[in-house]
Parts: sequence; C-alpha cells; structure tokens
Amino acid sequence: MAKEPKTLDDLFHDTLKDIYYAEKKILSTLPKMTKAAQTGELKAAFEKHRGETEEQVARLEKVFAMIDKKPQGRTCAAIVGITEEGAEIMEEYKGSPAHDAGLLASAQAVEHYEITRYGTLRTWAEELGLDEAVALLQETLDEEEATDEALTALAESVVNQRAESA
Amino acid sequence: MAKEPKTLDDLFHDTLKDIYYAEKKILSTLPKMTKAAQTGELKAAFEKHRGETEEQVARLEKVFAMIDKKPQGRTCAAIVGITEEGAEIMEEYKGSPAHDAGLLASAQAVEHYEITRYGTLRTWAEELGLDEAVALLQETLDEEEATDEALTALAESVVNQRAESA
Repeated sequence: MAKEPKTLDDLFHDTLKDIYYAEKKILSTLPKMTKAAQTGELKAAFEKHRGETEEQVARLEKVFAMIDKKPQGRTCAAIVGITEEGAEIMEEYKGSPAHDAGLLASAQAVEHYEITRYGTLRTWAEELGLDEAVALLQETLDEEEATDEALTALAESVVNQRAESA
Repeated sequence: MAKEPKTLDDLFHDTLKDIYYAEKKILSTLPKMTKAAQTGELKAAFEKHRGETEEQVARLEKVFAMIDKKPQGRTCAAIVGITEEGAEIMEEYKGSPAHDAGLLASAQAVEHYEITRYGTLRTWAEELGLDEAVALLQETLDEEEATDEALTALAESVVNQRAESA
C-alpha cells in the first residue's frame, strides 16, 4: 500500500504532538525534581518553571486550534530518555554533595530539547504562514532560553561550588 | 549498605561516559542519516559533521586521560531516545517532500543534547580546575554550536521551502 506523501503541514502537526507529550511529561516530572532538590534556590527555580510549563501547554493547545486539530500527544522517545537519565541521577546521587549539580544538568538537557523543538516549530510555522502560531511559539522559546540561562547562572554560582567543596 | 557520597569528580566522570557513549552512537547513526538525506546540501552537512565527531571522540579520550581514567561509555538513554525519533522520521517520511525538514530537525535535537552536555562538562571542569579539559570541551562546544547554526540556516533556506512547495 503506497503511503500518502507527507508535507510540512503533517510534520508540523506530528512535531506539535511530540512536544505536547513532552510538556505533559515535564509537568509530571517537575514536582519530583522539586522534592529531590537539596538547595532552596533549585527548588524555587523548578517551582517557577512548573508555572511556566502550564502556560506553555495552554499555548500549544491554542496552536492545535489554529490548525483545526485536537490537542493530542504522541510518545516522544527523546523526552522519555532525557527524563530517565534525570531519574537515574536522582537515585544514584541521592544524599551526595553532587546531587543538585547533576539534577540541574538534567534540567538543562530538558530545556535544550524544548529549545530545539520550539525553534524548529517556530521556523516551520513561518514557512506555513501561521503568524499567530509563530508569536506563541516564539514566546515559549524565549521563556525556555531564559530558564536555561537562569539554570546556568545557578549552576555556576551555587550548586557546583557546593558539590565540589563537600 | 551505605553508599559512598558522590562528588563533582564522580559526576564529571559519569557524564563524560554518557557523552562518550552518545558520540559513538552519533558516529554510527550519521552514515544512515547521510544516506537518507534527499538534498545534497544536507548530505554534505552530515558528512562534514561525521569528520568533526571523530575528532570530538578523540578529544574526549584525552579528557579521560587527564583524569586518569580509561575511555568508557555508559548507556545514555537520552541519545537513544533522540536517535530513535530520528529513525521514526526517516521511516515515516521516506520519499515525502517533508523528509529532509524532519531529518534536519532530528539532527538539531542531537546537536542541542551535545551543546547542553558539553556546556555542563566545561563548567564542571572549570570548577575542578581542569584547565586543559576546559579548553578541549570548549572547542567541541564551539563546533556543536556552529553546526547547529549551519543546520538552522540550511533549514530556513532550502529544506523547508522544498517541503512546503512540493
């Protein structure tokens, strides 16, 4: 059976489902990360990001509506793997001085996955002339980049020094 | 049995094993991606990156030597998941006009994973006073960022337009 040739519209929709699944997975993982964090600063950073992630999910639902589709996830093997690594770190480094440095690095891996996906989706939305979607995707992309920068600053100023000096 | 508390040295070593595994996985995946790419520009970009990746593996081996460890991989669930998604795209979009746009996006997800890991390792090497390792990790980080930018330019100029117009 010959397959229907897939277009950029299909790819945009498939990738939207991928990141929608990823955001939901992140929403369910953040409370565990917040609980596991040893330092107050990292707990606060994760707590803040949970609120942002809820808004990002809502923005994705608006983008689904713009292309006349129902919000729907599609298993994202990448985010499954990335969060699995984070869970390993939390387990293996539990109670150790380097725990938060590792947890923070895992969170940055999550951010970078989101940054690449939102960057791609934003570019495709431009190509497809979905101007309102471009604005929403750019808004989330800016937030993810700001979160990544905040985590980098936190890593340099607090967590690593603690891990090293202990 | 009480576990030995893990330090930043342990975390650095564990993460070095993680990215070493990831680079080897990427080396074995790039020829498949090169073969699958429909456009000459994308084939050329992957071919160039294969050469760089070989040098990046060699740099990692030098960093292992700097901390008196043998080069050794450790299964990296993140890169397994990310490359699995790339394989799905190659399969589902085979022969379709949007194939290369999707493949290119997968390659950027790989780059972003490397960018976050090398950024983290570079920061930790600084904290640990491993100056020569900092220089090597920074060199690879710069290459990965340049590759990601080159892929973004390629996506905007060639692949997406092809996917859309077909």
